[in-house]
Amino acid sequence: MQTIGHFIGGEKLAEDPRTQEIINPSTNQLEAKVCLASKATVEKAIATAEAAFPAWRAVPPIKRTRIMFRLKDLLEQNADRICELLTREHGKVLNDAMGELQRGIENVEYVCSLPEVLKGEHSRDVGPGIDSWSEFQPLGVCAGITPFNFPAMVPLWMWPMAVACGNTFVLKPSERDPSAALFIAQLGIEAGIPAGVLNVVNGDKEAVDTLLTDKRVQAVSFVGSTPVAEHIYTTGCASGKRIQAFGGAKNHAIVMPDADLDNAATSLMGAAYGSCGERCMAISVVVAVGDATADALVEKLEAQIATLKVGDGRDTSNDMGPLVTRAHLEKVTGYIARGVEEGAELVVDGRGLVVEGFEDGNYLGACLFDRVKEGMVIHSDEIFGPVLCVMRVDTMQEAMQIIDNHEYGNGTCIFTRDGEAARYFADNIKIGMVGINVPLPVPVAYHSFGGWKHSLFGDLHAYGPDSVRFYTKRKTVTQRWPASDIREGAQFAFPSNR
Amino acid sequence: MQTIGHFIGGEKLAEDPRTQEIINPSTNQLEAKVCLASKATVEKAIATAEAAFPAWRAVPPIKRTRIMFRLKDLLEQNADRICELLTREHGKVLNDAMGELQRGIENVEYVCSLPEVLKGEHSRDVGPGIDSWSEFQPLGVCAGITPFNFPAMVPLWMWPMAVACGNTFVLKPSERDPSAALFIAQLGIEAGIPAGVLNVVNGDKEAVDTLLTDKRVQAVSFVGSTPVAEHIYTTGCASGKRIQAFGGAKNHAIVMPDADLDNAATSLMGAAYGSCGERCMAISVVVAVGDATADALVEKLEAQIATLKVGDGRDTSNDMGPLVTRAHLEKVTGYIARGVEEGAELVVDGRGLVVEGFEDGNYLGACLFDRVKEGMVIHSDEIFGPVLCVMRVDTMQEAMQIIDNHEYGNGTCIFTRDGEAARYFADNIKIGMVGINVPLPVPVAYHSFGGWKHSLFGDLHAYGPDSVRFYTKRKTVTQRWPASDIREGAQFAFPSNR
Amino acid sequence: MQTIGHFIGGEKLAEDPRTQEIINPSTNQLEAKVCLASKATVEKAIATAEAAFPAWRAVPPIKRTRIMFRLKDLLEQNADRICELLTREHGKVLNDAMGELQRGIENVEYVCSLPEVLKGEHSRDVGPGIDSWSEFQPLGVCAGITPFNFPAMVPLWMWPMAVACGNTFVLKPSERDPSAALFIAQLGIEAGIPAGVLNVVNGDKEAVDTLLTDKRVQAVSFVGSTPVAEHIYTTGCASGKRIQAFGGAKNHAIVMPDADLDNAATSLMGAAYGSCGERCMAISVVVAVGDATADALVEKLEAQIATLKVGDGRDTSNDMGPLVTRAHLEKVTGYIARGVEEGAELVVDGRGLVVEGFEDGNYLGACLFDRVKEGMVIHSDEIFGPVLCVMRVDTMQEAMQIIDNHEYGNGTCIFTRDGEAARYFADNIKIGMVGINVPLPVPVAYHSFGGWKHSLFGDLHAYGPDSVRFYTKRKTVTQRWPASDIREGAQFAFPSNR
Amino acid sequence: MQTIGHFIGGEKLAEDPRTQEIINPSTNQLEAKVCLASKATVEKAIATAEAAFPAWRAVPPIKRTRIMFRLKDLLEQNADRICELLTREHGKVLNDAMGELQRGIENVEYVCSLPEVLKGEHSRDVGPGIDSWSEFQPLGVCAGITPFNFPAMVPLWMWPMAVACGNTFVLKPSERDPSAALFIAQLGIEAGIPAGVLNVVNGDKEAVDTLLTDKRVQAVSFVGSTPVAEHIYTTGCASGKRIQAFGGAKNHAIVMPDADLDNAATSLMGAAYGSCGERCMAISVVVAVGDATADALVEKLEAQIATLKVGDGRDTSNDMGPLVTRAHLEKVTGYIARGVEEGAELVVDGRGLVVEGFEDGNYLGACLFDRVKEGMVIHSDEIFGPVLCVMRVDTMQEAMQIIDNHEYGNGTCIFTRDGEAARYFADNIKIGMVGINVPLPVPVAYHSFGGWKHSLFGDLHAYGPDSVRFYTKRKTVTQRWPASDIREGAQFAFPSNR
Repeated sequence: MQTIGHFIGGEKLAEDPRTQEIINPSTNQLEAKVCLASKATVEKAIATAEAAFPAWRAVPPIKRTRIMFRLKDLLEQNADRICELLTREHGKVLNDAMGELQRGIENVEYVCSLPEVLKGEHSRDVGPGIDSWSEFQPLGVCAGITPFNFPAMVPLWMWPMAVACGNTFVLKPSERDPSAALFIAQLGIEAGIPAGVLNVVNGDKEAVDTLLTDKRVQAVSFVGSTPVAEHIYTTGCASGKRIQAFGGAKNHAIVMPDADLDNAATSLMGAAYGSCGERCMAISVVVAVGDATADALVEKLEAQIATLKVGDGRDTSNDMGPLVTRAHLEKVTGYIARGVEEGAELVVDGRGLVVEGFEDGNYLGACLFDRVKEGMVIHSDEIFGPVLCVMRVDTMQEAMQIIDNHEYGNGTCIFTRDGEAARYFADNIKIGMVGINVPLPVPVAYHSFGGWKHSLFGDLHAYGPDSVRFYTKRKTVTQRWPASDIREGAQFAFPSNR
Repeated sequence: MQTIGHFIGGEKLAEDPRTQEIINPSTNQLEAKVCLASKATVEKAIATAEAAFPAWRAVPPIKRTRIMFRLKDLLEQNADRICELLTREHGKVLNDAMGELQRGIENVEYVCSLPEVLKGEHSRDVGPGIDSWSEFQPLGVCAGITPFNFPAMVPLWMWPMAVACGNTFVLKPSERDPSAALFIAQLGIEAGIPAGVLNVVNGDKEAVDTLLTDKRVQAVSFVGSTPVAEHIYTTGCASGKRIQAFGGAKNHAIVMPDADLDNAATSLMGAAYGSCGERCMAISVVVAVGDATADALVEKLEAQIATLKVGDGRDTSNDMGPLVTRAHLEKVTGYIARGVEEGAELVVDGRGLVVEGFEDGNYLGACLFDRVKEGMVIHSDEIFGPVLCVMRVDTMQEAMQIIDNHEYGNGTCIFTRDGEAARYFADNIKIGMVGINVPLPVPVAYHSFGGWKHSLFGDLHAYGPDSVRFYTKRKTVTQRWPASDIREGAQFAFPSNR
Repeated sequence: MQTIGHFIGGEKLAEDPRTQEIINPSTNQLEAKVCLASKATVEKAIATAEAAFPAWRAVPPIKRTRIMFRLKDLLEQNADRICELLTREHGKVLNDAMGELQRGIENVEYVCSLPEVLKGEHSRDVGPGIDSWSEFQPLGVCAGITPFNFPAMVPLWMWPMAVACGNTFVLKPSERDPSAALFIAQLGIEAGIPAGVLNVVNGDKEAVDTLLTDKRVQAVSFVGSTPVAEHIYTTGCASGKRIQAFGGAKNHAIVMPDADLDNAATSLMGAAYGSCGERCMAISVVVAVGDATADALVEKLEAQIATLKVGDGRDTSNDMGPLVTRAHLEKVTGYIARGVEEGAELVVDGRGLVVEGFEDGNYLGACLFDRVKEGMVIHSDEIFGPVLCVMRVDTMQEAMQIIDNHEYGNGTCIFTRDGEAARYFADNIKIGMVGINVPLPVPVAYHSFGGWKHSLFGDLHAYGPDSVRFYTKRKTVTQRWPASDIREGAQFAFPSNR
Repeated sequence: MQTIGHFIGGEKLAEDPRTQEIINPSTNQLEAKVCLASKATVEKAIATAEAAFPAWRAVPPIKRTRIMFRLKDLLEQNADRICELLTREHGKVLNDAMGELQRGIENVEYVCSLPEVLKGEHSRDVGPGIDSWSEFQPLGVCAGITPFNFPAMVPLWMWPMAVACGNTFVLKPSERDPSAALFIAQLGIEAGIPAGVLNVVNGDKEAVDTLLTDKRVQAVSFVGSTPVAEHIYTTGCASGKRIQAFGGAKNHAIVMPDADLDNAATSLMGAAYGSCGERCMAISVVVAVGDATADALVEKLEAQIATLKVGDGRDTSNDMGPLVTRAHLEKVTGYIARGVEEGAELVVDGRGLVVEGFEDGNYLGACLFDRVKEGMVIHSDEIFGPVLCVMRVDTMQEAMQIIDNHEYGNGTCIFTRDGEAARYFADNIKIGMVGINVPLPVPVAYHSFGGWKHSLFGDLHAYGPDSVRFYTKRKTVTQRWPASDIREGAQFAFPSNR
């Protein structure tokens, strides 16, 4: 039985007394144990990162960037190994894992733009003979706390940019599926990041709270649920840190009467059920404008759900794998029961699914609710499972009101052919990431990711241009030189030589 | 006796039961009373701002910007009136007031760049037929809490940009000298800002805490002392807001052996004693490298101090006016006594100064300490008075260490002719705003203002480019259009017409 | 009889032997004479501008910018006077003149962003201890050669930015209607531009060729017809200069079957007939997709044309004034005859219009051709008069092919409600400025103006961000400092002092 | 005997009747023959590139960029092979070749930032409900004409960015040493550039003139001598193209009395004699301020020249290899004779050098002139050989005057410790690339390369940010949607369904 430890100063450590089990969600078999870092272990990682900072900060940005070029190559070369780890610990189907990894690699590609995006602004002659410019300097030790649902991608949102900017880093991945993040960190060292610049600790609340309160940590990036995000933001800010904390979501798609319904239905299948809906950008609510739209759409979704294939993630013919844990499966099925109680119409019930050969896995088929209403718990809560809710409204304005009323503001989408409807929606909806006929409007790596309302605590978004600003602080220099004997007086300084 | 009230929805209000006296610091005469807003009054201002938001947000940025062009004109036309208010309530000499106002006007000039600086980023073909772009949308209701020392300038750092970005605003100026801010807000309305978009409340902790905890307020900008800044950051963040809180400072100048000492001494006089040292960017410590440097510099400073003229701010031949309050005068003289006790050498003692005709004013002459050491309270605390401390070191490295050890990280400066020394200093010193032979390296209005360490809590600096980011949130849109009968099928759609 | 001269070094000059008449197009009465500058006069202007350059270049950008703030105010204060000049010499209706002037003022507003848009890029540590940054420095003497149709606006595209960037300038406005440009230049001096920095010469080919070949002129901006633009580009480039030469246009609007036809027709009326079609962004061709679309559209246009009011420009109830000259009127009516010969259907014939009280004016009513085809001269040539051609096609693809085949590439527009059609069009059409339901897609002042194909010779567009680049040249500095005794050796340099 | 042909549409072609010999400069042995393309061959390449454009333009930028990541890997993997080709055909020492290649790879690294640097600007609400944005679209077929002295690097300045921006390309490398460019182009295809997108033709004036006048070529980048650059600019512009033509140089270094002379002398050795001075950024003139400075500097240079090792480029212990051709050797030695005649003092005479084993090679030892004066041909002409001229002046102002008087404006450098002298120099000198204690201030790949005066014809510099602008044209879209029944009327459109 393997015990997964930490990665500090380029060394593996596994000495903490507390551990937690790593369970394969497809079989509920024990795969390994993971150490849960004590306060002392986390402080060791922080101290290591702090010690590595002065030398790393002094490496020219172009040299730090070149390591990221090598990291991209190593990630591509080791893609199969990484995806295997993702599937084993998280459960997602291998090609979905590959999609996740690809998104992570795209973030590394963007980091390769560092010399461009790190440029400061220079102004000649802000006054007579006075110049002024800004620089974006690294912060010092930064930390990342990442969720179970994207064990490879979300760490790659964070540390490559942080490290390339000249910071040192302590990553705490999800303790449920830490192996991919650990392995990728080792690839970072192989690519040329000096030992000590990038460190990984595994752990739970003790580790998190140490990172949040240790004065040596300058900044924390977090992705997880909203209650934890709010705790992270409040605690970290009270410790004087810079924090960006990404929380939950409930992403609605509006389907307009003029939409291409076949396209909308197909798009929604992937957006709702891909990775079992365990994505913060999953579409979990469809708001159909007009009953005719709703009727046609539900019919099409029902038909497509009938062809969905659920099973072990190593079989790439499957569309969905298991949920991440038994406990999570029970939570999701609880929501389904609650929805039925609340009066929503359960058009497709995915409960009771048994996958042959994987009878102990956390499997749940796709579920579809129709006639869901505001006020139902299945609408207000983030379920994080393969459950799609259809709501019916008469007008686009009603649909937008439902979205704007909701606590979360991560992503949303509209299906329409109409330019005006799309523009009005994108302009006015109170959501950070908007799709027009794009069901998962995750910004590409060269834009930045972030929601509004309770989906994000902090000013700056993840990855892309905003991440450069998050992982650096501005220094502004104003320079004037006093009149110079060297220049003006040279004639007098050396007359005897002529 | 005038009672200064609030300015809400374009109307003056003065109904709160609690008031505070406005005292002229040059005479200690009562000038007026100012209302201290109750929670209800502040909530009324917030509600007014919230109600004004949807319509204001919909005004095209160029139209909002044109109001700022007019505001600049009005500020220039009313400059004398504003400076008179500044001098009466704050005490600063009229031409120093004019300098403050000019800096504020420069911020308004920068806001006139809004259509340029508000631009988002557009990417064609992020995938086949898919475009993506970002927009910077306003936040909603924003608040500003500003200090007594720059009653006109600091509000102008905040609300013109916030309002131009499409937000509505509640300003709480210092209750000691609120009149300039109130008057300028009225000029804003005269310039064309709709009533309700810009509101001013006067008040104390009750008003501040209401602004910090009311969920309708999206963002708070604060300038003041570090303990309050920390409270603002912690409380405001715990309420889920976006906060930038600017705190205290202890700005050191290094004087190198090769510096032009006449230039350095003259520069330091203004930087240390201008506005009685009541500036967060004042130089309060000089670190001289080498005793020869120190000896020569102290001699020059002493000589120049002897010519300083202190008196009523309306007489522009004066170099320094009174301190802001009797209590503050006592606090500063307390520090001077403490410095003497701690063993620093009080080279010039400004205590006991009596200004003829203004015998009751809060006057204090310039003070100069030599041989100040780390550990002394006059070094660790921000005195905020006309007290300059000279420290003596042997090397530049020691000087830099003193600066980096200090709690604050606002501004610093080096006097040297040497390119390498200047560059090493600017690159490595742990301070946000760095001057090279520039004693007050306040960034110009088109760069941004912000310190490091305990001088700033938050990610984004004040005014300039950062303020656009602080007062807006990013929205990213990803757009794809389904195949179009309109385009491809037009031929078939209308065949019978031919 | 007034003789309009030049404006050189802040002085008016009118000594050239050659003059040309300024004729009021509404009456064909002589209004004034304008001097045509000899080579010597132009060289005097260039020499004056060259002499003024070193001092002007050294004025900090923010001070140069403040003059532009004042210029904006002066333009607004003198708007009526400027519009009166425009109407008298060009003929356009007063409120159209006000629209032109407003666009010019918007360019001045953008120039007020100079400190922001002039920023260079700064990179710390491009190598160990090496920094590098770019600056955008002025070129020296720049020249502008501007057309008759926007006598106020096009000069304001050019010289305010050129001058604000630190250049000096020689403007040669159209000799047909020079007074507005001359008057505005005087306002520039009144606003604070030093005499000699901005100069105006009136003239014809002799003046143009002198500007193009004089080695002291660094850059020339030109707006006019394509044959002249090509001559300017070839000649100016052969003289080693930087040239941007804006030429002719033939702007097509596509009307799709799904368009809001009432909106389209109303939009097209203004776009085709505003300012008598004497605009390089006028819509002169409508390509209707489907005969049903064409039939309905022609019917609506015909009805609206019937209500058009043509007459003297001082009467703001008029929609169109006279054409600029008798010769131009004859040229345009010649095209109408040619179109009839070529077989196009002249649905509305505006020829023979007599305006009561202005019987000698160059009046022509709105003309509408239907069933225009590729190959007809009225399609291939830029008519620059109130003549709108309707073409009929079956598909959007055919419509786009017509546009792409045409020599010019200035502006174009599509009327549709369909997101996909609009996006496909905007992405693929070979035109520089594209409108979606916007008939005159002139970029706003904070974007840049420029066509493709034979509508622009040169790399950089007019006004907005590109104009900063056109009027400056990049300087890149790379800086390293040798090891410093000053910094490292200070300890040893002064040991005896301790 | 190998005949080097062209590379068109992914195929090698070698059918032209005319050829030229490729001679190894170290031995003057024939290495190969190279085809000289006829007009028809060049037109075939252009036609191939034009045919490849529409499909390549439609590939999303991120996919085009990924090819550049692979190209970087392939260049690194094939570095030895490329350097061997460079040394064989050009003569430079292998590690100098490696330095050249590394600079080329850095340009490819910058191109990997494409998705960032290609972003357009987006403005919401330029008017009510109107949005506007700019896109940077590819031009079509672009061409590059590159010089003998950097056979690998200069092509890599051009086509990777041009191709990544979506253009197709025809490269004409120097016919003296074409093999590296040809080999690298093949690596481009191997990396994933589609055949036809990147083409190479070898040739002479016939090829060049075809590229300059063929209407299908949209833009030409050229690097070479000033007379040719001027011809390229004039001819290409007259053909309506966008041209950037980089010409000759005469780069001066000022050595100030306070400079670190050991550092200056060592720096100058590499800058003057590296690659035999056959670099457009070589320092060929040192202007010493004060005779004491000059005397000391000449002494140090003389001493270092004595240790220079000259010989075959494959031996990396050599500092200099042969000159590129026998004819060029004769031209350079002619200049040396001319300098002596003109009265300059030839301190070190490198003529007559014989390298054992390579007696027929084009070898010339380092030459050093002292007391060179303005007016001498060795000062006015670009020698492009290992000849360093020392000039003596009394003041920095005189030194700057010499530089500003010179026809060329490529690079320059100052050696000083003094901040004021450096800043005054960098600000005022009329040169495009300025070094402060950096003798070869070639901008790093993420800034842009370009001289002033007769060193560059055109507006935009090479590589870095400017190259994105050079290889794209701006398109500005303005969009408004008409009122939408879809959105507003949905309620009425489907009432019967409820």
